[in-house]
Amino acid sequence: MQDLNLLKQIDFIREIDKLKYIQRRTRLFNSDRHENDAEHSWHLAMMAIILAGHSNTAIDILKVVKMVLIHDIVEIDAGDTFIYDTQKNHTNTEEELVAAKRIFGLLPADQAAELIEIWQEFEEGQTAEAKFAKSMDRLEPLLQNTSNNGGTWAEYNVDYQKVYDKKKVIKEGSSSIWHFAENLLIESVEKGILVKK
Amino acid sequence: MQDLNLLKQIDFIREIDKLKYIQRRTRLFNSDRHENDAEHSWHLAMMAIILAGHSNTAIDILKVVKMVLIHDIVEIDAGDTFIYDTQKNHTNTEEELVAAKRIFGLLPADQAAELIEIWQEFEEGQTAEAKFAKSMDRLEPLLQNTSNNGGTWAEYNVDYQKVYDKKKVIKEGSSSIWHFAENLLIESVEKGILVKK
Repeated sequence: MQDLNLLKQIDFIREIDKLKYIQRRTRLFNSDRHENDAEHSWHLAMMAIILAGHSNTAIDILKVVKMVLIHDIVEIDAGDTFIYDTQKNHTNTEEELVAAKRIFGLLPADQAAELIEIWQEFEEGQTAEAKFAKSMDRLEPLLQNTSNNGGTWAEYNVDYQKVYDKKKVIKEGSSSIWHFAENLLIESVEKGILVKK
Repeated sequence: MQDLNLLKQIDFIREIDKLKYIQRRTRLFNSDRHENDAEHSWHLAMMAIILAGHSNTAIDILKVVKMVLIHDIVEIDAGDTFIYDTQKNHTNTEEELVAAKRIFGLLPADQAAELIEIWQEFEEGQTAEAKFAKSMDRLEPLLQNTSNNGGTWAEYNVDYQKVYDKKKVIKEGSSSIWHFAENLLIESVEKGILVKK
């Protein structure tokens, strides 16, 4: 007899393969190729592990890794929302909650509840783990855009102040990473790949 | 003044982006599109988190997640070796060790040493964590090939016995997952997508 919980887990594992098809606006480093959500999630998990020591406060790193690995899974149903989109708010839409319940709901009930809770904690951004996870999510496209002559900033005419306003949440996760990021933004203006009005 | 360790960590984070270009032989679920190593590593990390409860023995799940996230990074220099390749042994080649030292060596010394050690532990496959990580690495392509009418088994004429011999290490990580995998192999023979000679 097959283990029913295992069969549910396998269904979930098959379903989340679709994350590999969700294209982001940002492109790989020094590249024209768009990044997909699975690649992005892997990169954030690596960054969280490598940069954990820079967190402002003590964090449960396994929880941060879980957060970044799952944070975009809702986009399988809800699609990617561009961070500088002026029409649609990025955070915690009703559509994303429905998606979370459907997709994580494929799992056994206790695991579904745990992952929905971790996803919501990330979206709300209030705990030390969520703050650090969000700082990773803001740092990766900053590194990508600076490697791509401005990348999406140039492509969508996003100016320094708008970028700064989105990026400054990095400070809530890590002052030292924010110090680095702020310098990178200033350098980008000096290089002419980010416009300061 | 910039934090020198942080700059080394950022260099590493930029370098490992290249994992997104390393193509595997296997294809995404129900798909013609090849999977890349970053997507594969993300999927294994998700699987490890979801399936941890099936491990034969207690495991440090954070260590398993680190293992699967980094296990293919050496392929940035050494390239992907197909598991059914008869010319080149998959495991722990000299070339891979050189790659590990170069790539992880971009990090501050203590982190470089930690990740090289975890990577070697995975390659040696002796600890409970390495055994469970390896069972994830064997399970994903099994799920992919069965979703793709035999996938690489059909494409490279690999028969039941060869697949069985590669997959049976799953049992060392998890008896219950192996029970599921064995059934899937038998079903595959019955469906005619895996040839038993």
